[in-house]
Amino acid sequence: MSMATSRELANWGRWGDDDQLGALNLITPEGRRAALGAPRSGKLYSLGLPVQSEYLPPVPYRVPSQRLALTNQTDMPMWNTIGEQMGVPSPGTGANEDVLITSTHNGTHMDALCHVYHEGRMYNGFPADSSSTLNGAHFNSIDKIDGIAGRAVLLDVATHLGVPWLDPRVKIDSALLEETRSAQGNDVLPGDVLLIRTGWMDFLHSGEQPDTSYYGGYGQAGIGLDAVDFIDRHEISVVGADNSAVECLPCDERYQSVHVELLVKRGIHLLEHLDLRALSADKVHECFLVVAPLKIVGGTGSPINPIAIA
Amino acid sequence: MSMATSRELANWGRWGDDDQLGALNLITPEGRRAALGAPRSGKLYSLGLPVQSEYLPPVPYRVPSQRLALTNQTDMPMWNTIGEQMGVPSPGTGANEDVLITSTHNGTHMDALCHVYHEGRMYNGFPADSSSTLNGAHFNSIDKIDGIAGRAVLLDVATHLGVPWLDPRVKIDSALLEETRSAQGNDVLPGDVLLIRTGWMDFLHSGEQPDTSYYGGYGQAGIGLDAVDFIDRHEISVVGADNSAVECLPCDERYQSVHVELLVKRGIHLLEHLDLRALSADKVHECFLVVAPLKIVGGTGSPINPIAIA
Amino acid sequence: MSMATSRELANWGRWGDDDQLGALNLITPEGRRAALGAPRSGKLYSLGLPVQSEYLPPVPYRVPSQRLALTNQTDMPMWNTIGEQMGVPSPGTGANEDVLITSTHNGTHMDALCHVYHEGRMYNGFPADSSSTLNGAHFNSIDKIDGIAGRAVLLDVATHLGVPWLDPRVKIDSALLEETRSAQGNDVLPGDVLLIRTGWMDFLHSGEQPDTSYYGGYGQAGIGLDAVDFIDRHEISVVGADNSAVECLPCDERYQSVHVELLVKRGIHLLEHLDLRALSADKVHECFLVVAPLKIVGGTGSPINPIAIA
Amino acid sequence: MSMATSRELANWGRWGDDDQLGALNLITPEGRRAALGAPRSGKLYSLGLPVQSEYLPPVPYRVPSQRLALTNQTDMPMWNTIGEQMGVPSPGTGANEDVLITSTHNGTHMDALCHVYHEGRMYNGFPADSSSTLNGAHFNSIDKIDGIAGRAVLLDVATHLGVPWLDPRVKIDSALLEETRSAQGNDVLPGDVLLIRTGWMDFLHSGEQPDTSYYGGYGQAGIGLDAVDFIDRHEISVVGADNSAVECLPCDERYQSVHVELLVKRGIHLLEHLDLRALSADKVHECFLVVAPLKIVGGTGSPINPIAIA
Repeated sequence: MSMATSRELANWGRWGDDDQLGALNLITPEGRRAALGAPRSGKLYSLGLPVQSEYLPPVPYRVPSQRLALTNQTDMPMWNTIGEQMGVPSPGTGANEDVLITSTHNGTHMDALCHVYHEGRMYNGFPADSSSTLNGAHFNSIDKIDGIAGRAVLLDVATHLGVPWLDPRVKIDSALLEETRSAQGNDVLPGDVLLIRTGWMDFLHSGEQPDTSYYGGYGQAGIGLDAVDFIDRHEISVVGADNSAVECLPCDERYQSVHVELLVKRGIHLLEHLDLRALSADKVHECFLVVAPLKIVGGTGSPINPIAIA
Repeated sequence: MSMATSRELANWGRWGDDDQLGALNLITPEGRRAALGAPRSGKLYSLGLPVQSEYLPPVPYRVPSQRLALTNQTDMPMWNTIGEQMGVPSPGTGANEDVLITSTHNGTHMDALCHVYHEGRMYNGFPADSSSTLNGAHFNSIDKIDGIAGRAVLLDVATHLGVPWLDPRVKIDSALLEETRSAQGNDVLPGDVLLIRTGWMDFLHSGEQPDTSYYGGYGQAGIGLDAVDFIDRHEISVVGADNSAVECLPCDERYQSVHVELLVKRGIHLLEHLDLRALSADKVHECFLVVAPLKIVGGTGSPINPIAIA
Repeated sequence: MSMATSRELANWGRWGDDDQLGALNLITPEGRRAALGAPRSGKLYSLGLPVQSEYLPPVPYRVPSQRLALTNQTDMPMWNTIGEQMGVPSPGTGANEDVLITSTHNGTHMDALCHVYHEGRMYNGFPADSSSTLNGAHFNSIDKIDGIAGRAVLLDVATHLGVPWLDPRVKIDSALLEETRSAQGNDVLPGDVLLIRTGWMDFLHSGEQPDTSYYGGYGQAGIGLDAVDFIDRHEISVVGADNSAVECLPCDERYQSVHVELLVKRGIHLLEHLDLRALSADKVHECFLVVAPLKIVGGTGSPINPIAIA
Repeated sequence: MSMATSRELANWGRWGDDDQLGALNLITPEGRRAALGAPRSGKLYSLGLPVQSEYLPPVPYRVPSQRLALTNQTDMPMWNTIGEQMGVPSPGTGANEDVLITSTHNGTHMDALCHVYHEGRMYNGFPADSSSTLNGAHFNSIDKIDGIAGRAVLLDVATHLGVPWLDPRVKIDSALLEETRSAQGNDVLPGDVLLIRTGWMDFLHSGEQPDTSYYGGYGQAGIGLDAVDFIDRHEISVVGADNSAVECLPCDERYQSVHVELLVKRGIHLLEHLDLRALSADKVHECFLVVAPLKIVGGTGSPINPIAIA
């Protein structure tokens, strides 16, 4: 049996038959504490995109992110009424509130391990038909994890190659990741979060996007199947990228092949639509990263605003 | 002029006439880097409640949090169709996705500085009528900040007083905060996030809640106006609590009086419905805290899942 | 074979193997034209409840109906911008718009034939697993019908019995329906819509509801299994009532037994939460009724505002 | 004073200072009863478009119509649980439900009289600033009316002119309406609903739409200011059309000029995005029309499925 085959489902059962954390088990308290030493300046970077209805190329079946006003300055008389129950009315005081409607896989988001299934199974062998429409995913849902906090390494592939962005459809392989790592001079430690910059977010903001259709004929650069070897070798805990799917589009070999390798087989959570532009500009290649998904019960993912400290 | 009066609007203009960060300016990169030394074990705590439709007493006018399925195992034929555009179809591979609908002030959430206005003004003097129903808040909205990362101190008032939870309507004052701090033996440093535990979250989970009506006659313990002095004296950057409003309910003296003092006058962001039970159980009184609100454009707040590292 | 058994699935195949209209086939253009002669005064009655977040006892898993403002008087500057593309700006002119979020089975609504399935089948034998989460029901969905317009007969059971409302859990049987019809002196014609008044809507508005939990121990009066015989005998096209489920709660014999008999076996659409109070007060027992469900593609039902003309 | 000026606000106060029905007052019970004689065949036509996320050119700020599944065949175990409280469990029986999210001015819809304001006033002089974000319109909201049922006349302008659709931006004037009426040989009676077919819906379905942007440079044929005279002369109660705004786009003279004349000054409700293709094909120029808006409390409009009986 080739090593690739033998490792294929290696993480199923690796942390117990009931495990729903997957490769997040690779981030230990000790490792996290050590990772707190990574920052040099203490500068904070937000890797989350603004949440609004029109920003990214729309995916037709996804509900756009929408903020709707619930209360504002037009509601003063109402607030006085409620105020009476909350204390003595204060005629000049009011509150603004809103409602958020969003697909959990819009914008900058995190894929839960239940997001993808393959041949009837999710990560760790849980059955794909255990999800319910009313209650969501019973296993591997986003509320099963508390969050991510640990060391992250940015492999800035676009900068390494001296281009503003990789050509659409380019498959990033293990050799290119290793070469970028080496050129940057970074170590990758077991349990690290791997962040990959393709430049797609720059492309998107350049105005050169020829087509607003996500699934149109254009595609995106991202990792292909070969890159999984790099991820295995370095015992990566989580993979994030500045594109829509971490993997290249169209997918390598078959639909969602890298999602299957990472989410399903290895229990590796994915972070998508990261805004890595500021980290790249400041040449921040190592940082302390915190990702705090909303603990949506039964949820298949969550919008996030990852915080990197350099 | 008394000191209290002279300080009243001290933070308007303190960081410039255009400032929309408020007391977050007190968290400097240097302070943040120093705060990375606070953790001892590296253990991670999530302070966010599960996001689901029924959890907290409902506020009648707020839209409950609701996860709705967008795709699941019933959608395989559709996914093959989309798959053809994303790569070679993979008949056994599919994706689960969902939609989240939530009020931004449900569950564990963060108040943006625009959340409350008083006498026609928000923090730093921006006009209350600058908000628009379609576009939300033009000033002081939640997308104006990148996130919070710094040192936090938990004042576990309930534990200090030897009770599971403070009686409803109790006003916590500066003396009680100081006494708790001193008994715990913690320093509070300029720029610290202040977390206050009243025990209300324990009360809520005890099943003793006699009334599911938020604005019912019961009330909640929280800080009163006197506690603002403690916050001023220690140059606190952000205040969070395990109750619904940080301040006591009914409010001290008048509706939202503490919100006016903190959000409007001082530009101090608030964190509400924090789950501080595990920190309390483990006697974690100092930690490195990261809060990552979604950058909802024009938003008046955001659901959050604060991450504490002990 | 007993008559009950032989009739059981009588309507499957009755109007063709592809039929998705069910007993609406009983309303012919000729019958509709004749029904236009039913009204005496031309007075219009709306049988729909107001659509708002709090009105009926909440069903825990259903999303409450919610109107949210999209634009209003705070959006004038934005409207001028859009106005420039829609014509010459008109500074004093603006538009109010909103967004509606609602469960399709809240409030006054119509059940599509796909709403209930039994032993793996919907009306006319379509498979229950032909529904998809993303696309909804493939067969028997609410968009398959254009609407209902025809003669309706109100059987005002509560008034006939001389009570403001029937006791909860009362099962209305065929004999009681026949007795009410006879006492009222109405004919029931083939293809008629049958409206049944239990008084539950009056009860609900009386403030005597002891319990806001829909599925609480209280129940509702409604038709039981025996009443299906009346419906068969009179060739009824559609059944509506002023309660939550047309059938009594708890259901007769087993969960949704009457829904199975009417929706699944006979293809008879149901109208629920009708406001029949004004028709009852005016003793309008025959009318021309129009029901206009939204043609929600794949939808399992629709909010409605039925219009009766007396 | 010119007649135009003297008539300008004629309907303010015409039916009382408190009136919120506007020109619907022109449809009397007697007129409605007479209108029941209009149908010849009894054939039913639905004038509502399917409700789905992608159908019409999107208006950027509006939330698309979206049906989301709430329960389906994946929820059987849950339904057994609920079933126990609703009756004896019936393992093979389950229910499909969904949630609808929609802008009230998407698809086929009706404008409430509060939809547009002009110079600080709505129909009958109610102040524009009486709307509240939380509670919606206080005056002239869609829940103030029970529905529309009466005689309607279709003026099929496109067919009269012998074209599949009028050129974009064409302004239909009173002379063209009169000419169409005369050629068709119809009387228009006081209180009639006026339906105008421009052919835009055919154009939309022809695939010739060059641009999916609603507010793009293309425009739509519709009535201009001159057509208001025809509406006044015939004492029209309601105006509907197969385009997006009844009026031409860009608007005649200034933004929403015809909305101001009809909604604001005359209290004439508008029906938009009507599907008049089948009526046109069958040459149905007179019918009995029922429009049943959802009684959304505070709502500025409602999705509708108008029912015409020929």
